Amino acid sequence: MAMLLQARRILTQTLPGRNSNSSQAFVKLLGSASRGLHDNVTRSKMFDPNATSGKVITCNAAVVRGPKQPFLMETIRVDLPRKMEVRIKILYTSICHTDLSAWKGENEAQRAYPRILGHEAVGLVESVGEGVTDLKAGDHVIPIFNGECGHCPYCTNNTTNLCQTYRVNPFKSVMENDGKCRFSTMNGEPIFHFLNTSTFTEYSVLDSTCAVKIDPNAHLKKMSLLSCCVSTGVGAAWNAANVQAGSSVAIFGMGALGLAASKGARARGASKIIGVDINPEKFDKGKEMGMTHFVNPKDSSKPVHQRIREMTSGGVDYSIECAGNVEVLREAFLSTHDGWGKTVVVGIYPTPKMLPLHPMELFDGRSITGTTFGDFKGKSQLPELAKACMNGVVNLDGFITHELPFEKINEAFQLLGDGKALRCLLHV
Amino acid sequence: MAMLLQARRILTQTLPGRNSNSSQAFVKLLGSASRGLHDNVTRSKMFDPNATSGKVITCNAAVVRGPKQPFLMETIRVDLPRKMEVRIKILYTSICHTDLSAWKGENEAQRAYPRILGHEAVGLVESVGEGVTDLKAGDHVIPIFNGECGHCPYCTNNTTNLCQTYRVNPFKSVMENDGKCRFSTMNGEPIFHFLNTSTFTEYSVLDSTCAVKIDPNAHLKKMSLLSCCVSTGVGAAWNAANVQAGSSVAIFGMGALGLAASKGARARGASKIIGVDINPEKFDKGKEMGMTHFVNPKDSSKPVHQRIREMTSGGVDYSIECAGNVEVLREAFLSTHDGWGKTVVVGIYPTPKMLPLHPMELFDGRSITGTTFGDFKGKSQLPELAKACMNGVVNLDGFITHELPFEKINEAFQLLGDGKALRCLLHV
Repeated sequence: MAMLLQARRILTQTLPGRNSNSSQAFVKLLGSASRGLHDNVTRSKMFDPNATSGKVITCNAAVVRGPKQPFLMETIRVDLPRKMEVRIKILYTSICHTDLSAWKGENEAQRAYPRILGHEAVGLVESVGEGVTDLKAGDHVIPIFNGECGHCPYCTNNTTNLCQTYRVNPFKSVMENDGKCRFSTMNGEPIFHFLNTSTFTEYSVLDSTCAVKIDPNAHLKKMSLLSCCVSTGVGAAWNAANVQAGSSVAIFGMGALGLAASKGARARGASKIIGVDINPEKFDKGKEMGMTHFVNPKDSSKPVHQRIREMTSGGVDYSIECAGNVEVLREAFLSTHDGWGKTVVVGIYPTPKMLPLHPMELFDGRSITGTTFGDFKGKSQLPELAKACMNGVVNLDGFITHELPFEKINEAFQLLGDGKALRCLLHV
Repeated sequence: MAMLLQARRILTQTLPGRNSNSSQAFVKLLGSASRGLHDNVTRSKMFDPNATSGKVITCNAAVVRGPKQPFLMETIRVDLPRKMEVRIKILYTSICHTDLSAWKGENEAQRAYPRILGHEAVGLVESVGEGVTDLKAGDHVIPIFNGECGHCPYCTNNTTNLCQTYRVNPFKSVMENDGKCRFSTMNGEPIFHFLNTSTFTEYSVLDSTCAVKIDPNAHLKKMSLLSCCVSTGVGAAWNAANVQAGSSVAIFGMGALGLAASKGARARGASKIIGVDINPEKFDKGKEMGMTHFVNPKDSSKPVHQRIREMTSGGVDYSIECAGNVEVLREAFLSTHDGWGKTVVVGIYPTPKMLPLHPMELFDGRSITGTTFGDFKGKSQLPELAKACMNGVVNLDGFITHELPFEKINEAFQLLGDGKALRCLLHV
């Protein structure tokens, strides 16, 4: 109920004034959006780009004003999208450990306050800035923290998805165009951006390189998962590891990323998928997500890599490290088969500790590689992944374990921090 | 002259007795061998397998009896080849840093004395043991320290050249068949083997998986280089890095391995090949071997990776580390272009220091890998490399900087240790 009131306020508080000549576009959008928005038709009716396009918007946002400070639901102003930018109505946003880490402000260099965090979401294009031709108002979009400009030396290189300008950069807190913010408080104080996306707000402004158009028939709630965890996990299995049918995979860390990697490996036809976690309560979920065997490191004093080698005649073909712990990384590396084993690093390592590998160990024929966003080039390849999800190649069930209204974002963070939620979806 | 005397002694001292009925085979072998042996016809006349086959041979070998002890030219006995083994007449052998390191006995676990070192060579098959069908007396062969049985799970896997049984193993000092030696002193004391090859002897016994038949028209002296340095260096560029035409390559360490990598990169059409070495006296040789640019780390306080990035618009596509030094390894890693740069580790690291890389650095899109024997499967792929060398795809000129008679092996070691020789070829 509170949400309806907020949504209405967006329309009434647009600045500098209302544009009431919007019925045609409204009906059109509702028609296309309602297929994907079957679970959210009521709120989608509030979305009327004709009423807001060309104006500064006021809306609600969850603003963080210091490390570990509770999110404050503030009324903010959202500027017009500038050249090659788009303004997005966020419909759903979920929370990832990267948001949690940024919220904690663990890295001094990342501290920019006030700030709007968030990078997993799905929304509708509200309006586009000058020069944007691939997106238009009403398009269903996924924000991506790892953008794709399409024409830099990196984007034109088939072997990387790291765009020269719009690659993932947690330190970046302003727009690329002019080094300024598109968010501000009602007093005119700038509010900083996060990860090219900032999705903990009803409206956000993104570089168009960081908004991916998806099929309007895709299940919107689940599409939020493609902004980060599912793309990264599935891509780790498909692109970085290149899992082959009949192969064996060990996945270290059974959070949403690890489970998404399991889905990816399963989709590729892996015959043995071993989940490794110190919390055996996760094993049921792992089984649901395609894992076939489980190892709890605490169950034995024998090193995990030895146990996995025994389970797999010498080691798995692939291991995927989602824990972000260097000791675990070493186990993941050693758990692969010598000669051809490949370890994909997905976890984030806040420690100063270096890679716990000796150079000579590279001669055993094992390899190790990292992946950002599952090696997907977001703009050009994510629509295919979205279709694969729609077609059931990757089933997105089971990741969204909780749903809450946007206002309960602090509660959602607590759920993630306590390890109780895989993904808590906020209804924005 | 001394060599002629020794060679003659081999024929006269074969045990248990001479077989004089050998003229037909002798003529046949001379005919085929003389094309490759144009530089060594005199000695090849001494080779008569009909006179030695089925008998224990006595011959000269350079035996090492303790760490850093001078090689002693001893008369030894060489047993018959057993099942799936071959006995080889070594014609030429060269010396690699791995021999130098083994001779120094730096690794306690490697110490097995008396021992016959050596793993770069070329020779003729003298006789074959039971079951050997792919080799016969008179075949021109290259010994390989990294064998290929052809049927184990590794050999049947396209992604590795590490054979389950015959992979490189410097600790191994006996034959696979029976755990015994095929060499002994005249008093019956066993003499240990080295790296599946032991080439510092006039005759050696190898597993047939470790002897590669080559075209008898190939230039024999140069074929010795394919036993190790050229295969490893060229393969680092071709197989491990997969250097593309028009790309840039930095090679750290300009010994024979680095120069071979340069030849490989040049053969692939790399447009920029940067040699890095603290000894600028090597730059002329580097230019001769295909390098186009040079960096002397001592010339500037600016880190080498920064200098290379400036020379290459952001970094080389590939770097190849041949120095075996972890600080150099870090520079090699950072000198590649983010997004797609690949570092291939070829150098040997006796230090206990771990990889000087942070796990998060793997997310920059750079990768690192090690290569053994240039990722060539020796038995099946080396004949093609030999042909490529014969056809001038890879020109083998320039590697053999010195030639000495076998007896001067101690002098040859000194030349290598002092950095004065790339490869000193011993005429066995």
